[in-house]
This record gives sequence, structure tokens and C-alpha cells, in this order.
Amino acid sequence: MSELRGACIIGQSGGPTAVINASALGVIRTALDTECVTRVLGAANGIKGVLEDRLYDMGQEDAAELDLLKYTPSSALGSCRYKLADPDKDDTDYKRILEIFQKYDVRYFFYNGGNDSMDTCNKISKYMQKVGYECRIMGVPKTIDNDLNGTDHCPGFASAAKYIATSCAEVWQDAHVYDTGMVTVIEIMGRHAGWLAGSAALASLTGCGPDLVYLPEVDFDMDQFVADVTAIYNKTGKCMVAVSEGIHYADGRFVSEAETSATDGFGHAQLGGLAVKLADVIKNKTGAKVRGIELSLLQRCGSHVASNTDIEEAFAAGKAAVEAAVSGTTDKMVAFQCTREGGYKCETVLQPLDIVANFEKKVPREWINEAGNGIEQPFIDYVLPLVQGEPNRALENSLPRFAHLKKVLTTEM
Amino acid sequence: MSELRGACIIGQSGGPTAVINASALGVIRTALDTECVTRVLGAANGIKGVLEDRLYDMGQEDAAELDLLKYTPSSALGSCRYKLADPDKDDTDYKRILEIFQKYDVRYFFYNGGNDSMDTCNKISKYMQKVGYECRIMGVPKTIDNDLNGTDHCPGFASAAKYIATSCAEVWQDAHVYDTGMVTVIEIMGRHAGWLAGSAALASLTGCGPDLVYLPEVDFDMDQFVADVTAIYNKTGKCMVAVSEGIHYADGRFVSEAETSATDGFGHAQLGGLAVKLADVIKNKTGAKVRGIELSLLQRCGSHVASNTDIEEAFAAGKAAVEAAVSGTTDKMVAFQCTREGGYKCETVLQPLDIVANFEKKVPREWINEAGNGIEQPFIDYVLPLVQGEPNRALENSLPRFAHLKKVLTTEM
Repeated sequence: MSELRGACIIGQSGGPTAVINASALGVIRTALDTECVTRVLGAANGIKGVLEDRLYDMGQEDAAELDLLKYTPSSALGSCRYKLADPDKDDTDYKRILEIFQKYDVRYFFYNGGNDSMDTCNKISKYMQKVGYECRIMGVPKTIDNDLNGTDHCPGFASAAKYIATSCAEVWQDAHVYDTGMVTVIEIMGRHAGWLAGSAALASLTGCGPDLVYLPEVDFDMDQFVADVTAIYNKTGKCMVAVSEGIHYADGRFVSEAETSATDGFGHAQLGGLAVKLADVIKNKTGAKVRGIELSLLQRCGSHVASNTDIEEAFAAGKAAVEAAVSGTTDKMVAFQCTREGGYKCETVLQPLDIVANFEKKVPREWINEAGNGIEQPFIDYVLPLVQGEPNRALENSLPRFAHLKKVLTTEM
Repeated sequence: MSELRGACIIGQSGGPTAVINASALGVIRTALDTECVTRVLGAANGIKGVLEDRLYDMGQEDAAELDLLKYTPSSALGSCRYKLADPDKDDTDYKRILEIFQKYDVRYFFYNGGNDSMDTCNKISKYMQKVGYECRIMGVPKTIDNDLNGTDHCPGFASAAKYIATSCAEVWQDAHVYDTGMVTVIEIMGRHAGWLAGSAALASLTGCGPDLVYLPEVDFDMDQFVADVTAIYNKTGKCMVAVSEGIHYADGRFVSEAETSATDGFGHAQLGGLAVKLADVIKNKTGAKVRGIELSLLQRCGSHVASNTDIEEAFAAGKAAVEAAVSGTTDKMVAFQCTREGGYKCETVLQPLDIVANFEKKVPREWINEAGNGIEQPFIDYVLPLVQGEPNRALENSLPRFAHLKKVLTTEM
């Protein structure tokens, strides 16, 4: 394919992760070093920045500062949760995107996000093809939820998994100091897939793991939960439970949203507060001392305990996206193909955007124990290689030294 | 003073910290290497283990495994919250302690804990003097709350402070990715003293700190709080708030326990849930998107991001306690005397037990800004040297490798 000269845009979308900026750096660094990419523009707040003509000139950033992106959590360019309309029904946004692409001669578009972001890529790509504007469009995956189809795993997942496993091991230590009873419930992100909550079980490798793990892949039964906890508590005086925020009853209602009893007084319509709620149920039923802990945002921005494997893979995904696009590829997402037997190996491959859009990859049922309250060895074998390696992050005064970008808005073509 | 030969007991008490085991190791290692200490016994669950004759023979532990205590959070020997009676009213426990001391020829007693533990030390010491049993009794301080009198700071505080500052900086990054409004409230431990909540302000050195900080040293006013947050939110679209769990109204009621409005529906009698409650108040008043995050147990067991200065000082405190006792000292707590001008220096000194008992050291009012919603530079200058240095912790599969002690119970004299 002939060389395509022009500017590129990189945008970040959806919930941030500890390593999404490593992917952005992979794109930006590689694009800046590629001769046919005439200019590297960062979209402020994802596709919204394109629509609103808020684009940063990444060429004006200091190189050393850019490199710090590798260890800076969250989305440095800003993110959005903007869903493009169906172009057959309303093409306003697409016309505007084309206008911006034409204004800056954008010939490469890289979008760094999850499910919805790949859908955005796919729609823009189809539209540009329809109107005959040559632009190569690539998705760079990220999501702590690890629920993207077509890839062994997603950048961002492993660092969150490592944060969760490390924190669970530490909390286990804390929850076991007194010779009095204690039930600890730890709430972990993952609305529809249990990859993160399941990763709590990695802590068991340290000898300090949860006794019970509940994932959204298995219908939740409150009576069975109380029975499970009580059995362990009565035997050992302690019980540590890891639950996904997305656990739901057989009828589909999220436990966190379901009607609550008069005794606990909770009735939030949003997710969150589940740990406290379950702890209260146990307290009421058993009289045990309880503690509910929600890992909240901490688990997705905990770059200080990120997986270096995750960081390097995230960077590699961004780099691969640029290299593939420059070589003539379009309309693809970078994915990982991995082997674990005989040592972990991971290589980037390309997947059509439409196989990843609008599908959530769940934890296989056979990786969860029969009782639905624990994890089987294949899950551990899958996750463990991904969390390896410590980040070589920059510190100043022993505190994180994150990238401080200038973010110079581009005003001219 | 003449050499005193005999066994020693080391016990841990109160809430655990990330470095209390480093202090225990300082005691155990030094005692094992001291000729006149004939035996080193670890009390299971603090003074309860003495009363119940549950003592571990530390000499049977593997040396390399013991060394891992330096980076293992929480109380490895087990802790308790047992308060001894006034010996003039009920000397049952003291008689039993004497009996155990005599049984094992215990001549050295080291107690590793906070306020109440120093009180325990003091009472035991007084009793032993009264009955004429020669035993040297030393307190080794610990508490994340940093509220012990007579010492520059307490082992355990700095590591929790570093965890809090690091986490706040990371959450700040996460809370700033969208161009939509967001108010984040982070709840931090410290029931009566604001050392930990104030340490959130260290995150500002990274450029990612809280906009507002509320400590229990200043009476809390809900209307002023709402006004403070709203002013910043209206200006920037974001606001990050760090609050101590112990903030209280002018009449002394904890905000977390106070009567709640019908709209938020919370009415817990225990501390905790404050972040969500304050976030709800802001949501109701401003309509802003809010997030309440409680750092919970994570902040006191987060050894993966501990301060190495804290670890080394904690070890030094344990070592100094043994050395002082062997040299003839009794009835003292090891304390720190520090200078900060011309570079941070810290040395161990000895303080009488009774000046630390039953007194809570607060953050000086002049280290808090006049409005009572932020921290002044002297606070930063005080805390910053304490959080320096990264722990050289052991890992296995990139997960924490904590000490696994054999804990062999002693049955014979």
C-alpha cells in the first residue's frame, strides 16, 4: 500500500486505568518518530475534543515529560463517555469529525478505550469509507474489566488485579490480628464480568487470600452466602469475602440495588455500598464483628503497584497500532495473543473492530468452583503471568512524579 | 547496674500498622543476640497471651523468615485491646502476670503499642516494683494516629501518611479525567487527631492534592463545608476533599454519628460511612456528581508503599528498647527526638511511661489554616522527611512475600 502522509489524532475514552497513558505514549512516541505522520494531535476528552476542536499539539511536549506517561495513571488527555449516534439516523457528529479531519489533514485516528470506544472507532471508520475520506482508524484496547472480546486480556486489567490481590493480602493480615471474630467483605469493581473480583484469589498464593469469592457470572443467593460465611466463621472465627460489585440475584437484580430490609436501611440506586450492606447482613444474622471495604477508584488508578508486564504491553499495543496503520491497516483493534505453557509469551495481533464491539467476555463457568463461591486453578494460571514485574516509576520526595503535560491547544491547520 | 539474666517477652497491642512488625523484629533480633537474655518469648495477642500462658518461642523461628517481619504489615504475634484493671481495685491480672513471669523467669518485658499499651506497661511496672519482682519494662511506640505524647512522631504514622498521600494523588488523577463536574470526598482514619488526614495534603506536592482538608482539631460546620466545596466546584468543576473520620460539630458530636436528614438515610452509630454521607450532602445541595471513598483498613496495612524511614525507625525503636533494658533501664518508652533543619536526623531517646499515657497529641492549631479547611507549610515540613524511602520488600510472583512464622508455643519453663 502507498504511503499515507498526514496528521494523527490520539484520543482516550471511558473509565481510566493505571496504564492507559502507557498506551497513549506508545501511540504518541511512535507517531512522533514516524516520518509520514506529519503531526501528532491529542484529543482533549476523547471524541468530544474532536467534535469541539480541542486538540493538543503533542509535538510541543517535552520528551522526558511525555515518557513519564508510562507510569502516570488515569487518562492524561482527558476522557469522555460520549456515544456517537447511528450515522444512518443522525450524521451530524460524523460530518463534524470529517470537517476536523479535513481541517488538520488527519489521516490516522487512534482511539484508546473499551467496548464503547471500539464501537466509536468502527462507526467513524465506516463513515469515512462511505464518504471516501482516506483515514486509517485503529482501536487500542483498555479496560480494567478485561471483558473485551478477541484478545487474551486487556491492558489495565492486570494492574488493577495486582492492586486488588496485594490489598487483599494486606487486609487479610490486618483482619487476623485479634483472637476475636471478624468477617471482612471486600467489594471489587466489575459490573458484568468477574475478572477483577476473581483476581482477589491471587492473594491466596501469599497465604492470605479470601475464603470466599463471588462473581457476577454466577447468580447470587443471599441465604447461601450467609450459610457459606457462617460455616467458615464458626470454624475459624474469621472470614474474608471478595465480591464483585455486579453480583445479582437469579432474576437479574443487582444485589447492591435490590430492596433492602428495614434493619440495614440502605437503598441506593447506584452501585457501591455493597460491601457495607453484605457486612450488615452478616452482622444481623451472626452477630459477628464485620467490616465492609470498597476498593472504589483506588483499584483502577493504583499505579504505584502496577504490573510492569501490563505497562509494557500497554505501550506495545499503542506502538503496534501506529505501525500497523502506517503499513496500511485500518479498521482494526490491536489485541493480544498469548501462550502460557513453557513460559508466558504475548504478541500483538489485529482484530476486526466489529468482533469486539458490544460483547462482554465473561469468566468461563468452569474457572469458577461448582459452589460458585471460589476460583479454580485455570483462573490463577491465566492471571498470574499478567501481574508480574514492578514499575520503575519516577518519584520526587518519595511521592509519585506524574507527567505534567503542557497541553498546548492547536489553533491552526 | 549489674547484669540481669532471664527471659524476655515481647507483645503487640492495639490496632496494627504497616511497620509494627519491624519494631517487633528490632526487639526479637536484638534480644536473641544478647547473651544475658536467655530466651525470647512472643506473647500471642499481647497481654492476653501472657495471662493465658500462650507464648511463642521466638528462638525456634527461622532467621530469614524472622527478617521478613520488617516488611510484613499488621501484628504478626497477634494483638489485643485488653485494658488492665486498676491494681488497687483488682490485682487478679497482675498476680497472674507475675506468676507467668516467675514461671519462665521473665526479666524483660517489651510492649509494642499505643496509648493504652503504655498505660499497661506502666501499671505492670508499678506492680512488679511493689511486689519486689525485678523485671525491666519498656514501651515501644506504634500508632498510625501519631498522637503519642513525648515523641517527635510514632512508628506507623509515616507509612500510613505515605499511603494516604500516594492514594490521594492517584485518585486526583482519576477524578479529573472527565470534563464534567465531580466532587470526591476521601475519609481518613484518626478519631481525635488529624495527623493522617492532614497528610493527604502531601499529595499537593505532586500537583494532585485535595482542595480542602478537615481535621478534628477544628469544629466542623456543615454549612461552611458546603459553602467551601461549592465555591471551588463552581469555579473549577471539581473538588477533592480529605476528611478525618473524627470531625465533629462544636457540641462534640461526631459528624459520622450525628442525626441524619431523611434524604441521605444514614444513621450509623459507628464511625465509617462518613465519606458517603458528606458526598450525599454535597449531591443534595449542589446536584454535583459525587464519590465518597473510605481508605478504611487499607491505609494502616499498606506495607507495599510504606516509608523506609518509618521501617528503619520502627526497627531502631525495638532495638533501642532492648539495649536500654539490658543496660539497666526500666519503666520507659522509646521515643524519637528529631531535627529537620540542615537535613532530617532522628535519634532514639527514653521517656517516662507516664508522660505518654492517657494523653492525645493533636495537630497544633497554627499548622492548620485559619479557615480550618487546609494545612499550613509547617505541617508539610514536619511530615515530609518521615515518608522518605522505598521499602525493599520481598516478593514472590510479584505478590507480597510476608513472614510465615512457626509460632511454636512454649510449654515448659
